Amino acid sequence: MTITHSTEDALADSAFQAALEEFRAVIGAENVHTDPETRREYSDTYSPKEWTEYLPPAVLQPATVEEVQAVVRIANRLGIELWANSQGRNNGYGGSAPRHAGTVVVNLRRMNRVLEVNEEFSYVVVEPGVSFNDLYDYTQANGHRIWVDCPDIGWGSVVGNSLEHGFGYTVNGDRANSVCGIEVVLPNGELLRTGMGAMTDNPSWHLSKRGFGPMVDSLFMQSNFGIVTKMGLWCMPEPEFYLTGWVTIDDDEQLPDLLEAVRPLMIDRTIPNYPSVFTASGALAVVGKRTDFYDGEGPIPFEISKAIVSSIPNLGMWNLRFALYGRENVVDAQFENITRALEHIPGINITGTKMRGDEIDPESLDQSGKVQAGIPDMQLLNTSSWAGGEGGHIGFSTVLPLTGRDGRTITDLVRPASEQAGFDYIGGFLLRERSMMHVTLMVYDTADEPAAARARDLCGELVATSAAMGYGEYRAHLSNMDNVQDTFDFNDHAMRRFYETLKDAIDPEGILAPGKQGIWPRRLREEARERA
Amino acid sequence: MTITHSTEDALADSAFQAALEEFRAVIGAENVHTDPETRREYSDTYSPKEWTEYLPPAVLQPATVEEVQAVVRIANRLGIELWANSQGRNNGYGGSAPRHAGTVVVNLRRMNRVLEVNEEFSYVVVEPGVSFNDLYDYTQANGHRIWVDCPDIGWGSVVGNSLEHGFGYTVNGDRANSVCGIEVVLPNGELLRTGMGAMTDNPSWHLSKRGFGPMVDSLFMQSNFGIVTKMGLWCMPEPEFYLTGWVTIDDDEQLPDLLEAVRPLMIDRTIPNYPSVFTASGALAVVGKRTDFYDGEGPIPFEISKAIVSSIPNLGMWNLRFALYGRENVVDAQFENITRALEHIPGINITGTKMRGDEIDPESLDQSGKVQAGIPDMQLLNTSSWAGGEGGHIGFSTVLPLTGRDGRTITDLVRPASEQAGFDYIGGFLLRERSMMHVTLMVYDTADEPAAARARDLCGELVATSAAMGYGEYRAHLSNMDNVQDTFDFNDHAMRRFYETLKDAIDPEGILAPGKQGIWPRRLREEARERA
Repeated sequence: MTITHSTEDALADSAFQAALEEFRAVIGAENVHTDPETRREYSDTYSPKEWTEYLPPAVLQPATVEEVQAVVRIANRLGIELWANSQGRNNGYGGSAPRHAGTVVVNLRRMNRVLEVNEEFSYVVVEPGVSFNDLYDYTQANGHRIWVDCPDIGWGSVVGNSLEHGFGYTVNGDRANSVCGIEVVLPNGELLRTGMGAMTDNPSWHLSKRGFGPMVDSLFMQSNFGIVTKMGLWCMPEPEFYLTGWVTIDDDEQLPDLLEAVRPLMIDRTIPNYPSVFTASGALAVVGKRTDFYDGEGPIPFEISKAIVSSIPNLGMWNLRFALYGRENVVDAQFENITRALEHIPGINITGTKMRGDEIDPESLDQSGKVQAGIPDMQLLNTSSWAGGEGGHIGFSTVLPLTGRDGRTITDLVRPASEQAGFDYIGGFLLRERSMMHVTLMVYDTADEPAAARARDLCGELVATSAAMGYGEYRAHLSNMDNVQDTFDFNDHAMRRFYETLKDAIDPEGILAPGKQGIWPRRLREEARERA
Repeated sequence: MTITHSTEDALADSAFQAALEEFRAVIGAENVHTDPETRREYSDTYSPKEWTEYLPPAVLQPATVEEVQAVVRIANRLGIELWANSQGRNNGYGGSAPRHAGTVVVNLRRMNRVLEVNEEFSYVVVEPGVSFNDLYDYTQANGHRIWVDCPDIGWGSVVGNSLEHGFGYTVNGDRANSVCGIEVVLPNGELLRTGMGAMTDNPSWHLSKRGFGPMVDSLFMQSNFGIVTKMGLWCMPEPEFYLTGWVTIDDDEQLPDLLEAVRPLMIDRTIPNYPSVFTASGALAVVGKRTDFYDGEGPIPFEISKAIVSSIPNLGMWNLRFALYGRENVVDAQFENITRALEHIPGINITGTKMRGDEIDPESLDQSGKVQAGIPDMQLLNTSSWAGGEGGHIGFSTVLPLTGRDGRTITDLVRPASEQAGFDYIGGFLLRERSMMHVTLMVYDTADEPAAARARDLCGELVATSAAMGYGEYRAHLSNMDNVQDTFDFNDHAMRRFYETLKDAIDPEGILAPGKQGIWPRRLREEARERA
């Protein structure tokens, strides 16, 4: 059968209605949603309401692995496209919405069990519907002395965010690399367990990353090759001491020096966590709206930003947060070494707040102090309200070498481009051992269609411009997935061809998340190329 | 055409001879070897000479990426099976030899360029023919202040050992996880670059582990999906201070306590490297032969082992090595914390030798002190001579949770089984964050066919016994690859079926390393199952 390619057509199609009947039979009618409100909720909620390109025709909410398998088998048989997500909070990159019109959302919020919290080995095993908030509440309620890495906003799924290569801020902040052992429903409905889990009842499933033969876990990340139904994640034991560090510089000109000074500390893990460096606007957007600081039209002028910064204590033009964990003697020594490595930068201010790991009062911590201790928080969601109204944003996230020069190059590109498009530059760097991600949010009122359109256009332009400079994106909004995949052009797009080879083998009917990350099944490839 | 299934048949086959002619045309006749000496050199050299099951019909030595591509294309067209290796030093697991009779070895020793040593970001990029010894000599000769993780024996390939999930002993000892950015010749001859390298000239190829979409690097490890021709590897900057630590316990009964005490130090990375715990025999086999210590028949009796141990200074029944790196205040604090965490074990002895990183004299270091500093060494090769004669061994390597109980369980299984088969128990644990590998070497004189046969049989039995206890192998000798893959049985061998799906898609002609890790191409699968 052919697959219906428009969302509204799908609903009108009798074959599609017959498929919904089959879905209802296996997961219950109350878990198959076609009402406009639910469909809107599971679309790209950061797009203006009038934009329906990514509106799914239906939303399914299975509750068990067996139900997911049954749904996939029906979809395979009837040629229905499925877009699986966990919480569906991939906001800034398209939220819960599918890439291809007519694709049904499979949302896994009802699979919300914390399957294991293991303090002996410091890991957790969760289902996809468990949010960072849920998991934190669970570990607190049960007195577990374990810290789970989390992103800035706590309502997202632990599984979903980790699979999308999302970053956190503890020692396990490169979270995709802290995943150990997953269970996946393949597009044919088969159940696969990876690593040591490929052996029945092997106790090392969540302890050892590799099995016998190639490790395939990463194939199911940023991917449309399977639906992950269980995931092991390495965590930190509660440390004896925790220090949350804050570094400010007053002068934008010092940004390259700061990045240069930090790199060796990242490479040798003197800074053991994954720090961020962000603009004053980034810090301010957490605690207020732009009208709290400036009531003029257009982006806040640079000189006024400087004046705002100098009027607020502990705020710099750029702000670096980092953290230390462990026994007191090591934490003290590391802090001393970090201070010594940074203090040559004129005007730098370095502070550290140290506390016992078992005496942390979350209320006493700011947003950075919380997330660096694995305490999820919702404060950063405020950023979306920066421009007022019903806030939304789109994310632009570029991977760069961790150098001062590259930091300067990207801010010199993105700041003026953003301001020219009418957006305040709200940006920052997520630091890793040897690279960094420059993340910018273009924030708009979703009721302001022209602003939303400008944000999306700007992202598309920046993808092209930064690729021309040799930089690639780590993640992209639905509207940019093809563009970004296009920039990975070595040997005439050998990587995309390889992804397509895998896609056709693993998902021959092409039912799972067509177009995700620019990977299309054979059936839709030509159409996708023509659009490009 | 059909593929010749016996090595001697292959050589007699005119189609095979025609293929060799084509290979000669692209890589030069001097790099296509069919003489018995070279074929023997690239077979399983730790098998008795009389055993020819893994003897390849020919050995090809291309020198460039383009030559590898040309070889693969010819093989695809003519249906010739290829077994690629780097140095071909996978000794203990089959050396350079192919799994399937008739398969031609493609040895990459001539691709021996160090492509980059980057001190700013602390990584190297090498071709497959570069050994750890080569790379160390290169960094020393050029004054690079960078430490490259290495295994116990330095003649192996950096690429080859890392791809086989081989372990080292610095902070980058989980070396497969320190690989960042590879170039691969696919079975169809296409060239693929992974991660950020999938974008032409992206400067983050060897800095950031993921690109856009699923990361595929691990697909080419312990695999027969492609031939890796370039590899980036993260290294350590030369630390300000280095401490090599040595811990002994006199009583075998204390082994579980030692493992229990070490686990939290591994999880929170107080011990930042990848330590080993090994038997006295393991330590003795590095420096001598068994006849130096005991001249009786059969395995050295336990009581005599104890007497030997107590007569040698700094030697315990079990010996743990570990290392610390960094600024002096942190190294001192960590050593203090480690000492405090272990000193409750009766009879334990903990020593640390600290030195400046830029003042290391390799001659002053023992084997552990060297390899923990990334200084490759050949001393451990002595272990193979433990039983005298033309030494060989076979490796049995099991992954376990890092607990005292699991440590006891595996030694209680392997020690008596080894001794019953006439082998001294030479074993040890390679510790990781949450798991450990128990590695045993069955050492024999390769002239002693019955001993070699007993070693191989014993390995096969141990695979089955340990799998029945829920433990899986991380690596296996050619003769055990099918057995081990068989033990990964979850959902009726879903992982093997998934590997087969990938294999058929990536290598439809099934020319690359048939049977490696128990992954067979469609064409040979039935035959393989019948053998099992």
